Amino acid sequence: MRKRMYQIKKTEGRAKRAELVTVHGTIQTPVFMNVGTAAAVKGAVSTMDLKEIGTQVELSNTYHLHVRPGDDVIRQLGGLHKFMVWDRPILTDSGGFQVFSLAGLRKIKEEGVYFQSHVDGRKIFMGPEESMQIQSNLASTIAMAFDECPSSRATREYVQASVDRTTRWLARCKAEMARLNSLPDTINRQQLLFGINQGAVYEDIRIAHADAISEMDLDGYAVGGLAVGETHEEMYHILDEVVPHLPQNKPTYLMGVGTPANILEAVERGVDFFDCVYPSRNGRHGHVYTAHGKLNLFNEKYKLDERPIEEGCGCPACRHYSRAYIRHLLKAKEMLGMRLCVLHNLYFYNHLMEEIRDALDEGRFSEYKAEKLAGFEKMT
Amino acid sequence: MRKRMYQIKKTEGRAKRAELVTVHGTIQTPVFMNVGTAAAVKGAVSTMDLKEIGTQVELSNTYHLHVRPGDDVIRQLGGLHKFMVWDRPILTDSGGFQVFSLAGLRKIKEEGVYFQSHVDGRKIFMGPEESMQIQSNLASTIAMAFDECPSSRATREYVQASVDRTTRWLARCKAEMARLNSLPDTINRQQLLFGINQGAVYEDIRIAHADAISEMDLDGYAVGGLAVGETHEEMYHILDEVVPHLPQNKPTYLMGVGTPANILEAVERGVDFFDCVYPSRNGRHGHVYTAHGKLNLFNEKYKLDERPIEEGCGCPACRHYSRAYIRHLLKAKEMLGMRLCVLHNLYFYNHLMEEIRDALDEGRFSEYKAEKLAGFEKMT
Repeated sequence: MRKRMYQIKKTEGRAKRAELVTVHGTIQTPVFMNVGTAAAVKGAVSTMDLKEIGTQVELSNTYHLHVRPGDDVIRQLGGLHKFMVWDRPILTDSGGFQVFSLAGLRKIKEEGVYFQSHVDGRKIFMGPEESMQIQSNLASTIAMAFDECPSSRATREYVQASVDRTTRWLARCKAEMARLNSLPDTINRQQLLFGINQGAVYEDIRIAHADAISEMDLDGYAVGGLAVGETHEEMYHILDEVVPHLPQNKPTYLMGVGTPANILEAVERGVDFFDCVYPSRNGRHGHVYTAHGKLNLFNEKYKLDERPIEEGCGCPACRHYSRAYIRHLLKAKEMLGMRLCVLHNLYFYNHLMEEIRDALDEGRFSEYKAEKLAGFEKMT
Repeated sequence: MRKRMYQIKKTEGRAKRAELVTVHGTIQTPVFMNVGTAAAVKGAVSTMDLKEIGTQVELSNTYHLHVRPGDDVIRQLGGLHKFMVWDRPILTDSGGFQVFSLAGLRKIKEEGVYFQSHVDGRKIFMGPEESMQIQSNLASTIAMAFDECPSSRATREYVQASVDRTTRWLARCKAEMARLNSLPDTINRQQLLFGINQGAVYEDIRIAHADAISEMDLDGYAVGGLAVGETHEEMYHILDEVVPHLPQNKPTYLMGVGTPANILEAVERGVDFFDCVYPSRNGRHGHVYTAHGKLNLFNEKYKLDERPIEEGCGCPACRHYSRAYIRHLLKAKEMLGMRLCVLHNLYFYNHLMEEIRDALDEGRFSEYKAEKLAGFEKMT
């Protein structure tokens, strides 16, 4: 029998303060995973930088790395950890979402998806087995199941059929992962597998799906297909309904979410894993987070502002540089400007999660959340 | 009487091993100044990084900073050192070269140059006094005289008239610098001024000009207008002829040069200050320096290469990352790829200068140069 890897240390309402023991170290949750899609965080951020800004888990993408440089290349180089020089946990997204959002002409069949690479138009087939094989080659800490993420505008009939197929795919993912983890030359034979709940905005479909996948005894469960166009209230409502139907003794991951406020709301609803491109994408556009709202550093009013982005912030940008300097860099299109903003934003998110964990540890999450949300008032 | 700031510690033939004491610290020469035109080294390199890669002197540009963010802004923020957070020496180029190479429609008059900003087309006037005022606002350690850099294809008559004007401009620069350094609210009242020798490929004009400016007792002397299209042999020949006509008890700066081989040849000819955009520009294109030639990391052959760019190199890229990873980053257009290559290349240049200084200290520069050039054989 496998040792219990996920331990809940504290709860407050539905909110969970937990830890997940992995072969690459223990993850303290709630956690925000830092997105490095193509084995690098955009904005010239290295894995050395990630250590400096308190990153626990790096997140890379199966589809992107399969297309370039090729998971066979990464496998030959000893896996993703060795390739990008990162010894802490890595979660790999399954590629399902990217196949549906990025790739060219695609055809979904029971066996998987036929599509064209967005890089060179090359024809690719990816099904549950292929996704698991790629993720096994990458040797990430946590692999995500291969799913379909139906459009939020899809009909009920389409979504039902899609979710049913995703459930069948999940069984195939689990079997293939077990097979791969049993092979002697698999790099990470303790790779974990998280399943993904889908069902668009159809609550009953999502609940039935959550119940079905909960029986499959996976290492963790994600809620996918949210933050794709629905309102925040719809998203919170889905979480209210669905999270209780996922195993409470397993990690709960809300994919691709979100703003600091979204994260606080979702933690309250029992979510403990997050990822989102907002902090790095916003940073590259000079939009930086503070406890009192987001600043646009392109704004003229920062021209002579000698303060750091946020007073007291311990990030590498705030420890050294002024708003005026960073604004100049952004205006002059110096890459350093983007880099400093991305470092600040990721630090901000990582630090927010640390505060959330502290608040949960001390049984004051509810107050902390209220205070924090009041501060974010202007933040979107 | 002013204390002697420039001390020659050792010579070997014409090669000089010296130090220049400045208000921002002592510069050990020969030195390669790292180019950060708009108050940042391109490739997302920060001043914190510069300390890690052994940079002694940062070089920024008068014209660029006047246009954006404005030298008035930088003055209000306490000068360039405080703005970019760099406490070691900074040399500011005078803007002369950029006015002639970058700016739109320009008109050269005795008083100075009328031209249009390359950023917004705004009309600007810059003469010797304006250049000194801007550089005084920037408060760099070393200011460069405002000169005209005539085209290498200019006629003898044009060059003679241009050089004569540059000499008159130099006298005005010197007077204005003295005035500015005497003002109580000048940020750096110990700002140094280097004059610039011009004369295109006309040896006799260059020599007469060198003799004329040598009499003006400046803090240092540069040879400008080289590496703008002439052959390496022509450049070395000009140095052979001109450097002996510049004061030997002052720093000698060869502007905008060059390859590692150029630097070794110029050190032998008595030059001790250098700057060039090659290492950062090449780095951004994935071209990296090694003792055995330049590598193009885009090359397929590095796909599975687990070695660092150069074995034994102490730069932040080589201490952690493989050629295979950096190649992937470059191919995937991840900014981190450029950043790592730029860090490596600047470290390579800074380290080369350190080796040159050691060789001069130990009286074996001539052998060192021969060995090094043999190694660089393939390097262009």
